[in-house]
Amino acid sequence: MVFERVAILGVGLLGGSVGLALRSRELARYVTGIGRNRTRLERALECNAVTEIFLLDEKWPEEISLLILAAPVEQIGNLLKEQSSKVGKDTIITDVGSTKSRLVSTCQRILGSGHRFVGSHPIAGSHQTGVEHADADLFVNRTCVVTPTQETDLEAKQMVSRFWESLGANVMELSPEEHDYLVARTSHLPHLAAATLCSIVARLPHDRARKVIGSGFQDATRIAAGESGLWAEICQHNQEEISSALDGFIRELQNIKEAIGKEDLTGIVQFLEEARKYRTQLGSDADLEA
Amino acid sequence: MVFERVAILGVGLLGGSVGLALRSRELARYVTGIGRNRTRLERALECNAVTEIFLLDEKWPEEISLLILAAPVEQIGNLLKEQSSKVGKDTIITDVGSTKSRLVSTCQRILGSGHRFVGSHPIAGSHQTGVEHADADLFVNRTCVVTPTQETDLEAKQMVSRFWESLGANVMELSPEEHDYLVARTSHLPHLAAATLCSIVARLPHDRARKVIGSGFQDATRIAAGESGLWAEICQHNQEEISSALDGFIRELQNIKEAIGKEDLTGIVQFLEEARKYRTQLGSDADLEA
Repeated sequence: MVFERVAILGVGLLGGSVGLALRSRELARYVTGIGRNRTRLERALECNAVTEIFLLDEKWPEEISLLILAAPVEQIGNLLKEQSSKVGKDTIITDVGSTKSRLVSTCQRILGSGHRFVGSHPIAGSHQTGVEHADADLFVNRTCVVTPTQETDLEAKQMVSRFWESLGANVMELSPEEHDYLVARTSHLPHLAAATLCSIVARLPHDRARKVIGSGFQDATRIAAGESGLWAEICQHNQEEISSALDGFIRELQNIKEAIGKEDLTGIVQFLEEARKYRTQLGSDADLEA
Repeated sequence: MVFERVAILGVGLLGGSVGLALRSRELARYVTGIGRNRTRLERALECNAVTEIFLLDEKWPEEISLLILAAPVEQIGNLLKEQSSKVGKDTIITDVGSTKSRLVSTCQRILGSGHRFVGSHPIAGSHQTGVEHADADLFVNRTCVVTPTQETDLEAKQMVSRFWESLGANVMELSPEEHDYLVARTSHLPHLAAATLCSIVARLPHDRARKVIGSGFQDATRIAAGESGLWAEICQHNQEEISSALDGFIRELQNIKEAIGKEDLTGIVQFLEEARKYRTQLGSDADLEA
């Protein structure tokens, strides 16, 4: 599959990696970078992540085969509202946001009947941001969730799935709701737990705490170094699932606290052993390639 | 400082690493391995972690300069009770347990007045166990907490501190209570949080969860792969501090849940940003060398 023209709205780490991946695999004749900041677009051009650049208020090429919304999640709704008149009827649209229900229904509503939108969430990233850190192989062997709804155009869904596969990803289809339910527990809750652990340790006497911190704490809290703005948006967008995941987490913690208080050694060992087994079979990062 | 004879009771990963470290630095003429399992002791001898071995019920050499209790925490009290008559009056004793208040007071009580015991907690380890994985440099640039009390013999404290320093560790003195307060928050709470995250994700539809798990979850839960028995003991020994750390954790999680429910974006960003700053200044594992 070779596209005539793929446009990427927002050329940061993810958008830039899509561009590099398309270019290095020769999957698109033109890769169009669109954004609000000329300097950033020029950097994407220098990095060879795109072949042409346009500012948001400029006229874009008309015949875009695939438009990828890679701007920050909270901006996507407004951007799409402002720009939708420029999007051709045949253009297939997807995004890369890490929450789906709200975003997918917003995009569907804005684009109206006959839209050719389907949501995507490539589960890949980096602590780093910006097109300078983009990587042509960022999606290789990573899962990309594609989230069709009852409204979704079949051709759009198939093309977007094939698109991610051609960048090396393993595509999984989930409803937006199922996606948000799962990632609330595998990603958003762990992030909030890590941030909370940091905020507790941050209040301890600094030098002493620093000296007793071992590699376990470092591992357990690494994700808390992620961009606060992005994670705050995620919290807002996936509010309900995150709240329910937090409830479940708090309930479990209360149970384990009770077991510890009662010196219920059997119960504690059972709980820790179940967790140990699960974590052990997950293996190391190298095994993440599903 | 060179010891005539250092004895290690329990030659697993930590005890074995002490032996290897002493041998490779030529800090002791004899390194005596003591344990209940002959095969395991013989393995320690083969690994060059010790120079001589004795079973628990055998007669040991009398003139031991330093005795290191490196058996599992819950066995140390009983072992010391059974064996204390064999320990010479001049022998200085320490341990390597990761909780201190209970253990230190148990050891002090058993050894009685005039004892030369001081607790230690080298903050170093591995997911692996057994003398096969012992490492002569395990303690290099790691913190070792030494926990004297009002009863502690000054010479014992100084000798044990110099002992750890000679293995490459950075020694920090804390009271047993202060130690337990800190590690409850930097180590025990993160472990329970990681185990709880695993037990929640373990109940999700298995294949789908597996596919959406990214490197963040892997990092955040790595510690949950630790030995359940050891961690259950830690929960038992540091019960009060762990309970109070869990209370603080649950309270914070409830606050953040409330902020998310109210869509208090400023509050959420502030919380995440505080955590991000703290975690970022901690740096990577390489910076752990305090």
